[in-house]
Amino acid sequence: MLGNFSYMNATKLYFGEDSLQYLKDELPKYGPAVQLIYGGGSIKKNGIYDAVVEILKACGKTVVEDGGVMPNPTVEKLREGVKIARDNHTDLLLAVGGGSCCDYAKAVSVAVHCDEDPWEKYFIRFEEPACEIVPVGCILTMAGTGSEMNGGSVITNHEAKLKIGHVFGENVMPKFSILNPKFTYSLPQKQMIAGIYDIFSHICEQYFSGEDDNTSDYLAEGLMKSVIHSSLIALKNPEDYEARSNIMWTATWALNTLIAKGKSTDWMVHMLGQAVGAYTDATHGMTLSAVSLPYYRHIMPCGLAKFKRFAKEVWGVETEGRSDMEIAESGLSALEAWMRQLGLAMKISELGAAEDMIEGMADATFILKGGYKVLDRSEVVQILRECL
Amino acid sequence: MLGNFSYMNATKLYFGEDSLQYLKDELPKYGPAVQLIYGGGSIKKNGIYDAVVEILKACGKTVVEDGGVMPNPTVEKLREGVKIARDNHTDLLLAVGGGSCCDYAKAVSVAVHCDEDPWEKYFIRFEEPACEIVPVGCILTMAGTGSEMNGGSVITNHEAKLKIGHVFGENVMPKFSILNPKFTYSLPQKQMIAGIYDIFSHICEQYFSGEDDNTSDYLAEGLMKSVIHSSLIALKNPEDYEARSNIMWTATWALNTLIAKGKSTDWMVHMLGQAVGAYTDATHGMTLSAVSLPYYRHIMPCGLAKFKRFAKEVWGVETEGRSDMEIAESGLSALEAWMRQLGLAMKISELGAAEDMIEGMADATFILKGGYKVLDRSEVVQILRECL
Repeated sequence: MLGNFSYMNATKLYFGEDSLQYLKDELPKYGPAVQLIYGGGSIKKNGIYDAVVEILKACGKTVVEDGGVMPNPTVEKLREGVKIARDNHTDLLLAVGGGSCCDYAKAVSVAVHCDEDPWEKYFIRFEEPACEIVPVGCILTMAGTGSEMNGGSVITNHEAKLKIGHVFGENVMPKFSILNPKFTYSLPQKQMIAGIYDIFSHICEQYFSGEDDNTSDYLAEGLMKSVIHSSLIALKNPEDYEARSNIMWTATWALNTLIAKGKSTDWMVHMLGQAVGAYTDATHGMTLSAVSLPYYRHIMPCGLAKFKRFAKEVWGVETEGRSDMEIAESGLSALEAWMRQLGLAMKISELGAAEDMIEGMADATFILKGGYKVLDRSEVVQILRECL
Repeated sequence: MLGNFSYMNATKLYFGEDSLQYLKDELPKYGPAVQLIYGGGSIKKNGIYDAVVEILKACGKTVVEDGGVMPNPTVEKLREGVKIARDNHTDLLLAVGGGSCCDYAKAVSVAVHCDEDPWEKYFIRFEEPACEIVPVGCILTMAGTGSEMNGGSVITNHEAKLKIGHVFGENVMPKFSILNPKFTYSLPQKQMIAGIYDIFSHICEQYFSGEDDNTSDYLAEGLMKSVIHSSLIALKNPEDYEARSNIMWTATWALNTLIAKGKSTDWMVHMLGQAVGAYTDATHGMTLSAVSLPYYRHIMPCGLAKFKRFAKEVWGVETEGRSDMEIAESGLSALEAWMRQLGLAMKISELGAAEDMIEGMADATFILKGGYKVLDRSEVVQILRECL
């Protein structure tokens, strides 16, 4: 049954090869100081940085530099970004990069005018901002996280060995996002496929929960089929515009709240993956791929009807004359075959995890209760061991 | 290939059995004069009118009455609504009803402060509003049109024998919509199934166009499967909350611009149906059902790949050892069987159309060019005759 909920997502999206030009339509809505957020500098090599700065200057903006955002943005970097914003009276946080830059921009946006410690307030106590929020805009260069159209932000605290995500409300969502599929072409293959699996995992997290026949599940299946189809084309030819554009658009809709509406969700793959990430600093999508199959095989008997539906609807598994369990297992085998074809990490040991980290990772794994089976700590340890 | 586009849809939705209570959260955002728009008075019988007025009064609002909106809102009624709004300095247009009331509210919203004739400006010349737009809120009592989350408005001019829809931009979309599936329970069965087919037709109009493999098409297939599934449950038990809630949510997403993004669309079933509606004043969904199959059978050879996909993905038609044409025909036969099971009008003669109207209806049919075959006038006449 569709539960009660509200829905609002007012992020304005500009999508396509020509989308960067619309930045000039958005900029007049904000004051002069634009904090330009980016990562390791790849946007300086591929020309995106110059193109953005040119538009900012043509619109009379002051560019406040905030580069060096790492793949898993840290609490120290967050504090640095807040200082930059305060020192420069930032009017707009403009993230140019992947989900890390968008996530980081949102964390800064709610921290600039906040008197409390943002890590404690937002990522430990999960409170909502009471202060003024600095507006965020995104220019996306990697498809995967969906951060361009949601209120989510994941921050890593290496000292505490914690990687924690907070999904903020609609006020924290980006005001606008610019999605140019061609900006994702220069991404290394490994990052592309990690992003693809991140998308797929977002959909699974919202799909593998609940007993009812929910419109959200039909939409989720459509998104899964689209990303599977396009992933195999992009794997052969990363510059296939149709495939890359469909992947980018699917990423946005996989995690902008729509397909979670009216239903429960799981998110344990992310909890396990984030614990692995806190210990290894590995690419997010690869931590998700490396923990997925042992987790899903563990919970499958408890959500048999949905895993059977997944096999039939998403993977076209033959059902005639076979038991529900056989069908469900074939679905997960089909998922595994696709993952191996993409070249995803299938073991956390590939990411630098080792036996002596298992207990610590288990401690860092938040146990959520929305999935088909509520794990206890011993099951978390068992699953992480199976992932080694 | 995903084309270039922008997307923004900022309508706040409150969904569920308890959603009316959130009206009080929205009202403080607007001035005191609320123009209460409704239809033939069914909301006075089922208690919704009293519940809404009670909330309006508790929030200190002045209620400006604007009842009697007909199923196909007329240009005369539009002029009456504009006068009511001007005389009472309306601050919020609150539509309580189905798509007709929402459509009408949007037409009034762009006409109140407009110096020109709204019929000529918006429905003949298809111009965008340059004036202030009065905000619109919706409380939905019928699922189907999707008007609760889009900028569309259809107005009928009986004198000119024209029924014309204009899809306005994002500024004309409702500010908020309240969707309570239980408010749709009191609808007569015929209206419920007409609404269900309206939903399905909206999806088809956006699906049957284009050659590429587009994420929008995967989403469209998901929505189609969801509405087919729920329709058969609601047919047996109109008070099945799960089915009615999924139908309501599917209706919203079938026509809020999402599944048209990055692709071409058709809309000829609506052009034909609206011409029939202008001559017969029949229920919108029934005009669509009565023209669909002759139209789709006519264009099918020109869009064979998509009609084959429709057969396989939406209806699960067996494909092995069969030609594309046979598969596509089986898909349309499956559609026809479902339509007959629902009890939809399958002929325009059932709706009061007769041979002597055919030429006039053909004149009233706008020929659009996004579908798999651009019709000429003689084909429109031929299809309308086949619908008799």
